[in-house]
Amino acid sequence: MVQKVHLGSCCQPSRLRKVAIVSWASSRFVKDTKQNIFELACGPGAQILKNTNLDRKDIDALLVSSCTTEQYSSTIISEMLGLKPKVSHRVDNLCNSGTNAIASAYSLITSELCDLALVVGAEKADSTGNKLRWDVTRGAFMLPVHWAAIFARAHMRKFGTSEEQMATVSVKNHRNASKNPNALFKKPVSLEQVLTSKKIADPIKLLDCSAPCDGASAVLLADERNAKKITDNPVWITGIGQHTNSASFANAASDLCTIESARMAAQDAFRMSGTKPSQIDVAELHDAFTIMEILAYEDLGFARKGAGGKFVNQQNIAINPRGGIIGCGHPVGATGVSQVAEVAAQLAGRAGSTQVNDCKTGLVHNLAAAGSSASVMIMSV
Amino acid sequence: MVQKVHLGSCCQPSRLRKVAIVSWASSRFVKDTKQNIFELACGPGAQILKNTNLDRKDIDALLVSSCTTEQYSSTIISEMLGLKPKVSHRVDNLCNSGTNAIASAYSLITSELCDLALVVGAEKADSTGNKLRWDVTRGAFMLPVHWAAIFARAHMRKFGTSEEQMATVSVKNHRNASKNPNALFKKPVSLEQVLTSKKIADPIKLLDCSAPCDGASAVLLADERNAKKITDNPVWITGIGQHTNSASFANAASDLCTIESARMAAQDAFRMSGTKPSQIDVAELHDAFTIMEILAYEDLGFARKGAGGKFVNQQNIAINPRGGIIGCGHPVGATGVSQVAEVAAQLAGRAGSTQVNDCKTGLVHNLAAAGSSASVMIMSV
Repeated sequence: MVQKVHLGSCCQPSRLRKVAIVSWASSRFVKDTKQNIFELACGPGAQILKNTNLDRKDIDALLVSSCTTEQYSSTIISEMLGLKPKVSHRVDNLCNSGTNAIASAYSLITSELCDLALVVGAEKADSTGNKLRWDVTRGAFMLPVHWAAIFARAHMRKFGTSEEQMATVSVKNHRNASKNPNALFKKPVSLEQVLTSKKIADPIKLLDCSAPCDGASAVLLADERNAKKITDNPVWITGIGQHTNSASFANAASDLCTIESARMAAQDAFRMSGTKPSQIDVAELHDAFTIMEILAYEDLGFARKGAGGKFVNQQNIAINPRGGIIGCGHPVGATGVSQVAEVAAQLAGRAGSTQVNDCKTGLVHNLAAAGSSASVMIMSV
Repeated sequence: MVQKVHLGSCCQPSRLRKVAIVSWASSRFVKDTKQNIFELACGPGAQILKNTNLDRKDIDALLVSSCTTEQYSSTIISEMLGLKPKVSHRVDNLCNSGTNAIASAYSLITSELCDLALVVGAEKADSTGNKLRWDVTRGAFMLPVHWAAIFARAHMRKFGTSEEQMATVSVKNHRNASKNPNALFKKPVSLEQVLTSKKIADPIKLLDCSAPCDGASAVLLADERNAKKITDNPVWITGIGQHTNSASFANAASDLCTIESARMAAQDAFRMSGTKPSQIDVAELHDAFTIMEILAYEDLGFARKGAGGKFVNQQNIAINPRGGIIGCGHPVGATGVSQVAEVAAQLAGRAGSTQVNDCKTGLVHNLAAAGSSASVMIMSV
């Protein structure tokens, strides 16, 4: 009944304020920090406040991304950081929480409700976000590895993707993580080590999987005028796509070889930013399992459908230079924020030991369980 | 270091898209619906989809407001409502969650990431959102009534506010609720009944308090073009103010006679909408306890500081015509959404048995625990 409409304006496309990522920080991702969720969350936020030397009064939004069951965590974290923001709440959507919160922060700034928005993602390794008890169509197993195994087997059957190709993703991401001081896994692994690691749910082996851990990350977003005062290297958010498919695996994954939510989110993000997959220099892809990175190659348009397995050896795009989720660990609510922090650092030329040469345009791809929802974000300098 | 700036534009003030509330629905608020949180949440959303006859594909955001500890509830509720929105996550900030979620939905539309955003608030009576275990400065009692008693005693001491004045708020709100078929409490109460009801924490008595309950509410927000297609009576959101003070009672309430977060949120909302307190025809105020409504009169500028007690008998502004939180019950995550739904219904002239005559401009005031955070929203037709 209602058609999608976009109102015209006398001054498109500059009508809306531009938004940049101007600062970022991450904790080390480790098995157990011995910190509670609040202490853990405050680390990167405090680091950003120190690095930018901002007056705390100027931070007018604090969004928290976490699957914690603690109540009003954003208000508690505000107080612990010495902030009294206008807007503060927690965003919860499993692994996709972090990019959801950053998209919300973007829209708070674009809509002129806020100028400077801090997004903090934090999770403890024992978070209830690691377990789902709603959807028995995932096999009543509750563990993500079961749907990953179904995706992997389907792709192998339909396109001939091999266990070696999946293992190659793990080798690459562990190698990248070995250069990242914040990563959970610091040792490179060989193809043989991956292939002979313990079978968890055939064909997924232990080293095809990411691991839950403690971790926190934060990014600071600013409107254009403030961004240019804070940094010489603002990283502009140029495209955002989000899509929610279905909580049920049976409905979310009607085609077991495509994550439909990611495909649609990517379409929207590329359209909004006016870029194409071939223009991406650096990308953080949601590799909770090796097969998920291969599916992402295809769903984002880096490779044609079915060619993801062969794409693992490409060198044109720097994919998961920090080590991805497999190498860095997967603190659920922090993951999306840490992905954006990494791509922002890369584009600003400040990624340190994981820096990729000559990157101007970057992409973040984030998913919640089995692709039930997805976010794609495009940034450029 | 960074100064607050607002960029100029060639086409102010029409640069940003206007946002309207175009449909709303609420469940009955009762002690126990026998429904789980998901079933409960779906009721009002399904009602809105039915009332508007919208194609489900056109709903491109679903935000859920709740203190539930269930994971990825917004994706589950999306699926149960037959929606596949772009944006979907849960917003958590105690009693303030609902208005936080609506402000987020507003900014998603203004920023052009979405056109039609459904906000669903839902809570079970046994929600963990009714208890806090973080801040021992509230007296380690964990129960909201203890800070309410401190506020009441301070106001009585400083301004001579009486127990009768507080009780008058309860009488008014119970009387209003008696006309509201969705309200938890359907019987009027007398001044004497309030004054002689059981003392909970002196001077707060049982009938000065709201009660937890099961309840759900939903509102649909739309950009201007869609709004005018959906309804002849769009209710425009003209002002939003939000402020976060402190999670600790000791810090949040440095002046025990002012809810500073509400005062600042109101300032911002009035400034944004270009209205004054005297222009408000109808208001939903956060009366979790009778003293909180009296504080709100002052913090919003309806009465001068200290004169709130005498303001209880005024007739110029229709305050809490649905019965407020005291009359309707307090399903924490649903409360803010139900407040906005009520004011929208009033302004559209569709509030049925609780309709107030000639109201053009309305206000919603919402708080989280002890004023740790506050939202003020102004709407008009």
